[in-house]
Amino acid sequence: GRKVLIVYAHQEPKSLNGSLKRVAVEELSKQGCSVTVSDLYAMQFEPRATRNDIVGCLHNSEEFNYAVETWEAYKRGGLSSDVSEEQRKVQEADLLIFQFPLYWFSMPAIMKGWMDRVLVQGFAHEFPNCYDSGLLKNKLSLFSFTTGGSEEMYAKGGISGDIRYLLWPMQHGIMHFCGVKVLAPHICFAPEYVSEEKRKEMLNAWAQRLKTIWKEEPINCSPEWYFK
Amino acid sequence: GRKVLIVYAHQEPKSLNGSLKRVAVEELSKQGCSVTVSDLYAMQFEPRATRNDIVGCLHNSEEFNYAVETWEAYKRGGLSSDVSEEQRKVQEADLLIFQFPLYWFSMPAIMKGWMDRVLVQGFAHEFPNCYDSGLLKNKLSLFSFTTGGSEEMYAKGGISGDIRYLLWPMQHGIMHFCGVKVLAPHICFAPEYVSEEKRKEMLNAWAQRLKTIWKEEPINCSPEWYFK
Repeated sequence: GRKVLIVYAHQEPKSLNGSLKRVAVEELSKQGCSVTVSDLYAMQFEPRATRNDIVGCLHNSEEFNYAVETWEAYKRGGLSSDVSEEQRKVQEADLLIFQFPLYWFSMPAIMKGWMDRVLVQGFAHEFPNCYDSGLLKNKLSLFSFTTGGSEEMYAKGGISGDIRYLLWPMQHGIMHFCGVKVLAPHICFAPEYVSEEKRKEMLNAWAQRLKTIWKEEPINCSPEWYFK
Repeated sequence: GRKVLIVYAHQEPKSLNGSLKRVAVEELSKQGCSVTVSDLYAMQFEPRATRNDIVGCLHNSEEFNYAVETWEAYKRGGLSSDVSEEQRKVQEADLLIFQFPLYWFSMPAIMKGWMDRVLVQGFAHEFPNCYDSGLLKNKLSLFSFTTGGSEEMYAKGGISGDIRYLLWPMQHGIMHFCGVKVLAPHICFAPEYVSEEKRKEMLNAWAQRLKTIWKEEPINCSPEWYFK
């Protein structure tokens, strides 16, 4: 059975994000997948990248360099347990699903902190092993999110610009950099401004998509996909 | 005298980011500006958007909606004091400088949390007052950051793509959305891989730029600037 990690960032289980997460757990479990959820708010996940992420002595205590220190700590098994636990989940997963409400054209800070702290050098990348040769290759990722703005606002020529523009840092800058292949994003536009029936359709569409998720081809994660 | 708020996110005062921050405080103070620094790591600034940001009762305690609750709380003066203190600093400022190391094609989570929690509806925007009519119009902003990757990697056609691609969510999605005008970013590429002399030149160039910062014209914050 395939393994899926859902990294989930919403405060409210009753939200559409909460329902999308539940639908994914149900559908993927039904398929025989083993599904793990990192419920970041429930875990009170720490988003700040600090000295506390390194157990024991620093490599250079004169001048703190987070990237260097976490790289060194990773190599000697000295990252804090909350970080290494997330790394273990990532290592085991075939597919990473990120489920969140779009905050400021990006993910909420609590999820950005997961990226900042979990995907350290040595674990997720190690020059020159980045992009297509990143250390997490052979894994898939999918960004599933809700927006405040409407589909029209996020159209090419719309006031907020093509929604693909804002996917570049998340999909290319993070996932592709680590070698993770990227499936097409799953976007629910402005769920707060539609009927209850339309929200049910959104949940249904997500469940339907997940039925054939393992047959999907990754996107071509190059500038053409985003800015053509 | 003009007022400047520097929102600063680096753990180490001896870092280049720390020096860039100090240089800005010195140069702007010399000009007679009043400069305030929000040193996010030193403040242990909370990046997570939670129920704790609302003092007292919720508007709807059955289903927590962060955007709605913070909007309502803002209107009745019921946001947590750390958030309202940052709002006060923003309100007074003519120029906002964001100083940080680029983490994953974006700002560190602690700074993203500042955006998520401080720029709430009612304070920074309130439909239809967004983009050119955002509530923080007549203010300027400037993203000043360091990168791990080289200028070549961040060139058009480079492996990481034009650096402007990743500025879209920060400059357009956040600042422009709130009506804040955007000055050209200030980027120090790969300071860890250059000589001490070159790093001194970087600091000098920043001080020089700040001497005439008030004469600069904002960029045209439209897709053409980013993706042309």
